[in-house]
Amino acid sequence: MQHATETIRHSLAPATQGYVLGVDIGGTNLRLALASRKGRIVSRLCTTTVGTRNPEDVLRQIVDGADIMLQEQGLGRQHLRCIGAGAPGITDVDNGVVVATSYLFGWKDVPLARLLEEALHVPAAIDNDVNLATLAEGWAGTAKGETDFVFLAVGTGIGAGIMLRGALLRGKDWLAGEIGYMVVPGTSEAPDAPGIPGALERVSGGEGIRTVWGEHCSARGMKQSPEVTTAEIFELARNGDEFSQSIVEQCATPLAYAIHNMALVLNVPLVVMGGSVGTNPMYLSAVRAALQRRSHRSTPVLGASGLDRDAQLIGAVRLAMSKLADRQR
Amino acid sequence: MQHATETIRHSLAPATQGYVLGVDIGGTNLRLALASRKGRIVSRLCTTTVGTRNPEDVLRQIVDGADIMLQEQGLGRQHLRCIGAGAPGITDVDNGVVVATSYLFGWKDVPLARLLEEALHVPAAIDNDVNLATLAEGWAGTAKGETDFVFLAVGTGIGAGIMLRGALLRGKDWLAGEIGYMVVPGTSEAPDAPGIPGALERVSGGEGIRTVWGEHCSARGMKQSPEVTTAEIFELARNGDEFSQSIVEQCATPLAYAIHNMALVLNVPLVVMGGSVGTNPMYLSAVRAALQRRSHRSTPVLGASGLDRDAQLIGAVRLAMSKLADRQR
Repeated sequence: MQHATETIRHSLAPATQGYVLGVDIGGTNLRLALASRKGRIVSRLCTTTVGTRNPEDVLRQIVDGADIMLQEQGLGRQHLRCIGAGAPGITDVDNGVVVATSYLFGWKDVPLARLLEEALHVPAAIDNDVNLATLAEGWAGTAKGETDFVFLAVGTGIGAGIMLRGALLRGKDWLAGEIGYMVVPGTSEAPDAPGIPGALERVSGGEGIRTVWGEHCSARGMKQSPEVTTAEIFELARNGDEFSQSIVEQCATPLAYAIHNMALVLNVPLVVMGGSVGTNPMYLSAVRAALQRRSHRSTPVLGASGLDRDAQLIGAVRLAMSKLADRQR
Repeated sequence: MQHATETIRHSLAPATQGYVLGVDIGGTNLRLALASRKGRIVSRLCTTTVGTRNPEDVLRQIVDGADIMLQEQGLGRQHLRCIGAGAPGITDVDNGVVVATSYLFGWKDVPLARLLEEALHVPAAIDNDVNLATLAEGWAGTAKGETDFVFLAVGTGIGAGIMLRGALLRGKDWLAGEIGYMVVPGTSEAPDAPGIPGALERVSGGEGIRTVWGEHCSARGMKQSPEVTTAEIFELARNGDEFSQSIVEQCATPLAYAIHNMALVLNVPLVVMGGSVGTNPMYLSAVRAALQRRSHRSTPVLGASGLDRDAQLIGAVRLAMSKLADRQR
């Protein structure tokens, strides 16, 4: 009885405060976090989305995951107050709709916020994954306390989250920050085609770096491993392989030009590089060096994300906290 | 007596409303406008700034001009309520200071708002000329009623005024929109040097177009007139001269890339081209064609300024009206 009473006491105290759920729907993983309304994460859960990418399946996984985490904490559904969720694509945050995701994921006009609200009976807010990472960087990351900065997600693709005067810039069609399609010296001038990555991504994104590496191998008649990863190219460069170093520099330069161009438009003091490719120290320093060669009075400080792959999930928690605070204002 | 009485009556009625002064300090001309507080311009004045570019001389010209216009309307200094002024350079609008202008004009840290307030004993607000033209376009021009658009000033140099959610984006160091320094395919990758126009301006600005024209003439061993103007090149192209047409296209393409890049960052629905070069129909249509070749879901509509060289002056009047309204709120 003593134990039971204590458990009740323990869960009654936070229950008056309530909890929020952060959801990061990714191309391969679904990550969930249960957090206090002040943002302290008390439980996490990660499952795969491979093979279960349709909205109904993902929704079921979210509901099941939320129940598991609540149960683990001795809490019930009634303790959940709000949800923040991110999806990899174009999101209409006003209407809570995922307008489109990459062809891999295949979502189109999914009313994610409404689906979450109907499933869990609490308010839900959504945004795209890059914007959520941007929220997280400004709240708890490298850009903590900054009202004006850009978060640059560099993985397979390249996208930017733009924070101006403390608010995310979204753009007319929710497309602000799609800089993977920039044209700069070193990118192709060929028009973009549907379903094909943008001109900048094709050179400076993770897949682009592999492609450029492969092309140079072929051109030199070099034997190449078709299985080489971007991480391995960076590792070769770090170990002094001059060929790999030249590839890294060649791919970093267009990205530096894109940052230069973006900074001319926005004049933000800080750009935070994130994503699996963007946070690689070899790549970061190559981009930084190229940016310095371009030096202009608008040139921003180039930092690295410290939140790593947690950025989106932390941002989702932050989004839920803001939504809850707004509703109780 | 009858006449005199009528004059008094006439000037007493508007006097209760008061007037605002718009000031456009340009590289060659100083333009002034006296307007009702609702923005109806009742008098204009234009003088030269050549040879009288130091702040004291310009200030004296402004004061003299204001007095002349007031007098013409049968008004006195007491009828002036507010001043809005623009200068060609970097302006700190919070502190009313012209931080720097081009080397031609040579101003550095001039407290223009304070100087105007001391000289005319009414509140004054300042901004840079491109931002003022942007205000004007959104108030009475091609972007009327739009809360999100870019005004692109293309004259000798190239600069952008960025309106987001109905407010001008200024940037950390008042440098937002300096896109004349963008690097895109077709611009030099050489670092920018102090006092030298930016990479984009050197190809796509008025002086740049002349330079490219001259370089191609030399390369082809053609005899060229060193006195050819950008307007003449456009005219030649319009009259079917294929060489000039190819130059116009070559210079328009980098500008279209810069607009494409900027639109990817901001996702604004409308870009308004202004300035003596930017409003030339030949150039505008060449830029538009190049932009369409780049087509992306972010591609904005490309319009032409209808305010022409009045844009800055009208924007200065608008700035004065806003300042006055803010103070009386």
